[in-house]
Amino acid sequence: MRSRPTLEDVARAAGVSTATVSRVVNTPDRVRAETRQRVEAAVAELGYAPHFGGRALASNRTGTVGAVIPTMENAIFARGLQAMQEELDAAGVTLLVATSDYDAAKEAHQIQTLLGRGVDGLVLIGEARDPAVYELLERFEVPFVLVWTWRADSPWPCVGFDNFAAARDLAERVLDRGHRRIAMVAGVTRDNDRAEARIRGVRAAMEARGLALAPSAVVECDYRIEPGIEAARGLLAAVPRPTVLICGNDVLAAGACRAVRAAGLRVPEDVSVTGFDNIEIAELLEPPLATVHVPHRRMGRMAARNLLARLDPAAGGACGAERPASLRLETEFLARGSLGPAP
Amino acid sequence: MRSRPTLEDVARAAGVSTATVSRVVNTPDRVRAETRQRVEAAVAELGYAPHFGGRALASNRTGTVGAVIPTMENAIFARGLQAMQEELDAAGVTLLVATSDYDAAKEAHQIQTLLGRGVDGLVLIGEARDPAVYELLERFEVPFVLVWTWRADSPWPCVGFDNFAAARDLAERVLDRGHRRIAMVAGVTRDNDRAEARIRGVRAAMEARGLALAPSAVVECDYRIEPGIEAARGLLAAVPRPTVLICGNDVLAAGACRAVRAAGLRVPEDVSVTGFDNIEIAELLEPPLATVHVPHRRMGRMAARNLLARLDPAAGGACGAERPASLRLETEFLARGSLGPAP
Repeated sequence: MRSRPTLEDVARAAGVSTATVSRVVNTPDRVRAETRQRVEAAVAELGYAPHFGGRALASNRTGTVGAVIPTMENAIFARGLQAMQEELDAAGVTLLVATSDYDAAKEAHQIQTLLGRGVDGLVLIGEARDPAVYELLERFEVPFVLVWTWRADSPWPCVGFDNFAAARDLAERVLDRGHRRIAMVAGVTRDNDRAEARIRGVRAAMEARGLALAPSAVVECDYRIEPGIEAARGLLAAVPRPTVLICGNDVLAAGACRAVRAAGLRVPEDVSVTGFDNIEIAELLEPPLATVHVPHRRMGRMAARNLLARLDPAAGGACGAERPASLRLETEFLARGSLGPAP
Repeated sequence: MRSRPTLEDVARAAGVSTATVSRVVNTPDRVRAETRQRVEAAVAELGYAPHFGGRALASNRTGTVGAVIPTMENAIFARGLQAMQEELDAAGVTLLVATSDYDAAKEAHQIQTLLGRGVDGLVLIGEARDPAVYELLERFEVPFVLVWTWRADSPWPCVGFDNFAAARDLAERVLDRGHRRIAMVAGVTRDNDRAEARIRGVRAAMEARGLALAPSAVVECDYRIEPGIEAARGLLAAVPRPTVLICGNDVLAAGACRAVRAAGLRVPEDVSVTGFDNIEIAELLEPPLATVHVPHRRMGRMAARNLLARLDPAAGGACGAERPASLRLETEFLARGSLGPAP
């Protein structure tokens, strides 16, 4: 078995010192072009990949940022992650993504794994998690940023939006169109503060107009089409029938639209449907989906910049840098064909 | 600055030897329950994450598998990755995903980064890449599997499908419906052997019937809706107009359907449209999209098993295990409303 090439092997092949190899890896701008090319040729020839014996030890940096997201399916997180990756990539940092299936214990394990792999920073979705996880993050002194969430008094840096306010705003638009019999196809609230905040937002808007969101009018289900169809079918069987299904996201709303049609009803003439996220399918549906536009790409980009600012050695490194301010992004309600006046 | 807790710190806190801590991390079944609980409590309390000083050194395994995919957007790879992640997760292995933006140089860099992070195995999309990358993989002796591709005489383990055969089969169904003026909204073929094979498949089916696919009838574009609309708009302006737009995937087909409608035409009465992948949007479109069903979840699951079989120490470890056979998965043409007879 051939062993992996080391920093020493590269130095020997290039006829330079190990310190020079390290400089080429970490601060290529400070190395003469000719030397750099010699080292890079040796790196390529030997198949050297800098790891804990190279770049990491030399600079205490690994050039990687980890993200733990709940799921890769359904493109809910896709666009934001893609933008984050592009921004990190431009800074020479690789984004490594793990998925937790909306399971807090799995997420904690994956955070441990990423810290163990030596990531320079972490991106996490939402805020609610076991205090032990935050203690772990502080102990490792690895900078992290919370995305898809924003709360004025959060102790952690957030780059995201206010799920509660966005859902309340959407519900107000629904109420403005005369709807009173409102039901919700919601996401599962366990281990998911965003799903929980969206339900609270709808409830707050209704209560402000003297209406109640009955527990029986809220069904929680996985963010996938089939469970969305099932949940909507159950809600549509209520007597009297709801005039609108407010859905926890666009995927559930796509399922709800199908359930309305499967029941021989029309969207929006008989039952209106709303989503949340404005992912690609929202505009492709017929009628197009009324939903909340989330600035996914901007959120991903700004989250990356937030982390990079704290990783920049010029700013004093991860420990010395001041914590950048959280950033609240605006969401926007999009009135589209799936939301009509109450029948 | 507090330093990260070490294996020794955990051993001291739990009152056991470092070898015992290592056993708890690597082979918990062989440790008495009481001892295990003591060590686990110390791990949790100290926030210890096994890394190159712990699990990796002890077993030469890191419990992570890396995947480099072209993009996270559009859910093209989402479902397969999600299934892969679930299967690996059941085996206690964490999947770390990097994205390359369909750029071979970026992919090579990310493979290096993942090897540098010490992954136990790698999942790569497609087969065509610089021989130097395959040499690097062999040098590191890290098992890898190629997915979304399958070729009978590939020297590498593939768990995927034959893009050429699937596209040829689809084109035959299109020809069977009387279409002769065929145009293609194809994916970008640079650094993408799947996109290239799909064009070749359509061309082969046409040539078998004495027809030619003119270069001007093929437009390559990024796998996103907007470029798909643009490309289709250009192709629809040809005189005589094509009667069908065969698209490189479902995302491009969704764009093509919009372009047909924007031109005041109907799908499929005036122009038929076909996709490839059968991702979620295919069935949500109106009319639903005729496409090639790719068994994404099964592909992800089987790719994970292929790697796990080679990682299982009982099978002799990464180096000793025999290379598992490649696996060819069947695709299926789905006749749906967007494909009609030639007008």
